[in-house]
Amino acid sequence: MNTPDNAKPKKTAPPVSPLAPARFPDLPVIDGVRFATAEAGVRYKNRTDVMLAEICEGASVAGVFTRSSTRSAPVLDCQAKLAALQDGAAGGFAIIVNSGNSNAFTGKAGVHTVEMVTGETARTLGVPVGHVFSASTGVIGEPFPPERITNALAGLVAGLSPDGVAAAARAIMTTDTFPKGAVADVVLGGVTVKIAGFAKGSGMIAPDMATMLSYVFTDAAVSRDVLQAMLVDQTTRTFNAVTVDSDTSTSDSLMLVATGRAGNPAVADASSADGRAFAAALEEVLKDLALQLVRDGEGATKLVEVRVTGAASDRDAEKVARAIADSPLVKTAVAGEDPNWGRVVMAVGKSGADADRDRLSIRFGDILVATDGWVSPSYTEAEGAAYMKQQELVIAVDLGLGTGAATVWTCDLTHGYIEINADYRS
Amino acid sequence: MNTPDNAKPKKTAPPVSPLAPARFPDLPVIDGVRFATAEAGVRYKNRTDVMLAEICEGASVAGVFTRSSTRSAPVLDCQAKLAALQDGAAGGFAIIVNSGNSNAFTGKAGVHTVEMVTGETARTLGVPVGHVFSASTGVIGEPFPPERITNALAGLVAGLSPDGVAAAARAIMTTDTFPKGAVADVVLGGVTVKIAGFAKGSGMIAPDMATMLSYVFTDAAVSRDVLQAMLVDQTTRTFNAVTVDSDTSTSDSLMLVATGRAGNPAVADASSADGRAFAAALEEVLKDLALQLVRDGEGATKLVEVRVTGAASDRDAEKVARAIADSPLVKTAVAGEDPNWGRVVMAVGKSGADADRDRLSIRFGDILVATDGWVSPSYTEAEGAAYMKQQELVIAVDLGLGTGAATVWTCDLTHGYIEINADYRS
Repeated sequence: MNTPDNAKPKKTAPPVSPLAPARFPDLPVIDGVRFATAEAGVRYKNRTDVMLAEICEGASVAGVFTRSSTRSAPVLDCQAKLAALQDGAAGGFAIIVNSGNSNAFTGKAGVHTVEMVTGETARTLGVPVGHVFSASTGVIGEPFPPERITNALAGLVAGLSPDGVAAAARAIMTTDTFPKGAVADVVLGGVTVKIAGFAKGSGMIAPDMATMLSYVFTDAAVSRDVLQAMLVDQTTRTFNAVTVDSDTSTSDSLMLVATGRAGNPAVADASSADGRAFAAALEEVLKDLALQLVRDGEGATKLVEVRVTGAASDRDAEKVARAIADSPLVKTAVAGEDPNWGRVVMAVGKSGADADRDRLSIRFGDILVATDGWVSPSYTEAEGAAYMKQQELVIAVDLGLGTGAATVWTCDLTHGYIEINADYRS
Repeated sequence: MNTPDNAKPKKTAPPVSPLAPARFPDLPVIDGVRFATAEAGVRYKNRTDVMLAEICEGASVAGVFTRSSTRSAPVLDCQAKLAALQDGAAGGFAIIVNSGNSNAFTGKAGVHTVEMVTGETARTLGVPVGHVFSASTGVIGEPFPPERITNALAGLVAGLSPDGVAAAARAIMTTDTFPKGAVADVVLGGVTVKIAGFAKGSGMIAPDMATMLSYVFTDAAVSRDVLQAMLVDQTTRTFNAVTVDSDTSTSDSLMLVATGRAGNPAVADASSADGRAFAAALEEVLKDLALQLVRDGEGATKLVEVRVTGAASDRDAEKVARAIADSPLVKTAVAGEDPNWGRVVMAVGKSGADADRDRLSIRFGDILVATDGWVSPSYTEAEGAAYMKQQELVIAVDLGLGTGAATVWTCDLTHGYIEINADYRS
């Protein structure tokens, strides 16, 4: 199917993703949270690799984590602690995160490391150990001496500052080519509350929590139950709706903290006016962060929104959207700026969802490419090829069967991905 | 996780896969089958692109096809004709296959093309149209004028020869870098019978029929029911157990024809001694052909056998084996000769199968890499790195939970795959 005479130059991975936002946003101070970072030398040299967040007493804390059956020791520890949290318990909270070593598949030693790191953090800050959450991102399966972190704790605590959020976003990066932040504000009961979050991740980004790590803070007063329910609900449409390579991390963690210091009337009902307003602002932040993960997908040069409508069910729509977004043949066609809609048809066919070839239609942006089981009479290859040159693309499929719909975001599959994952030994 | 100072040179796709067998096997004449090929100019120039097989009256014909919901018009036609076959019906059979255009997603025009091609083949050969099976492989969604094939029919029929099988294997190639053939013989009731087959395929090779196209012929006498049941059973462990890129073709077709001309006592019971002997020889041919598809995987430089044991069920074992074999991160690690067993742990975790991190063990060949939830005390990175330099690798995972087992074969993911699928416009 290929002829060498129309070869195009190879794409290689630039130092910063071409899809990166122009700048890191100005993240506001969130009253009740202080940050610090350190160069602990977990794996990297001459860069920060540990971040500590100290959170005030009385905050609401929520979390969503990878469903991998081989999830890391820190993830298991966070899940156990969140499940045991009591509303109104005395004592502040802390989150301690390192990059460079994921402490995943490290057996009992890994569990010991989590106990040491969270225990020492609790002791140094004077907060209950059940209120200290940790995360580790980096290489899987390597020994992780807890001293690397615990030796840095005194310095971290001394450096805590309300302004440290941008530095925290950098300290948790691994193969990321840019730090990822997002911000929103919203008025609740006459009081303006702020939401600010950051995230890291660019490879091993997949259906089940693409995070890998994300921390979002707000000064709003929101009950823990409402916060947790909103986070679970919105993760489906944000972090769980992005895919870079279909591979799922063992460490994916998303935590959301509400300090309550803004002084708004506490949101205790998600369906109230304030609850809905807060949810809308939160989803804006989560979606912004999730899309930044795709924008920093390893080797990515194109951002692709895959919109599926007309499916027999939402679940079927999601199957089709993921089959398209994860297809190596679709993703390489996008990389090659090739309007190869036949590969989209192939992906629909393999998805396992109900589909009728003769009711299917496909659009690239606003261009009707295929309809009624064949190429559209109005479609020209030149039009498709011109569209594919854009940096941000929409591939829309209507199955013509029902009202099920889903949207998934992905990136292209380029030489840059192979370079990052095959050409170097990790 | 990557540092540029240990970069390795890029791998590019050689003209013939480095995993290709040394030579195409000597395929024997199968009494009752004649082949012809032609340069019909469907898409390619200066190469054969149509193959015709004429099969004697009284043969048993079986087939297995893609389960894609967007499968091609020829696949739908073959399925309908096989379902309507009557044992003992008068008239010979024919198989007509073209490369260059898959006649998939071509609407009602595609159905018309199949009717024209099979109808004209039936008329020219003097066989019932219900006995003429077709297949098309190549670009999806392009118009396919049937005249390209029908104009070549007279020449094809004039050129039919019992010796034409090697030429037939070449005529159905698309992006294949070598033709694929396999042969076996077995004694049934004192009579030696022969099995000879060929296949094509190298991209869009995935769980559900990795064929894309394969035709296997035997002079044995085997009842149609037994033939069909054996084919369905063995496809699970052969063509459906290989994956190159997890993408499923809309055209995958595997047909098996038994002419009965060898004169053996007809096999009418798969569990008889003759039935079991024939099945063993057939599976040898199917597995050989299926593995040749992986050996010709687009850009492949390594053949990887993924063996999963100790799963709670065979279905779970298959989930784990496919998650490993389809993982872009595992496949790029193999390309980079990186013994990155952490990525194997990741793939186990994302598979959805029951797994207990602390019972998991991983071997590269005979090397115990990880056990009891962590790296094996006996394992050294140098040992793993030396193993990964081999061209044929075994990645074995024992889940330590039950007796479920599965084996899947795959190849690595290299710059060659990106070159073939992104750098050129198809």
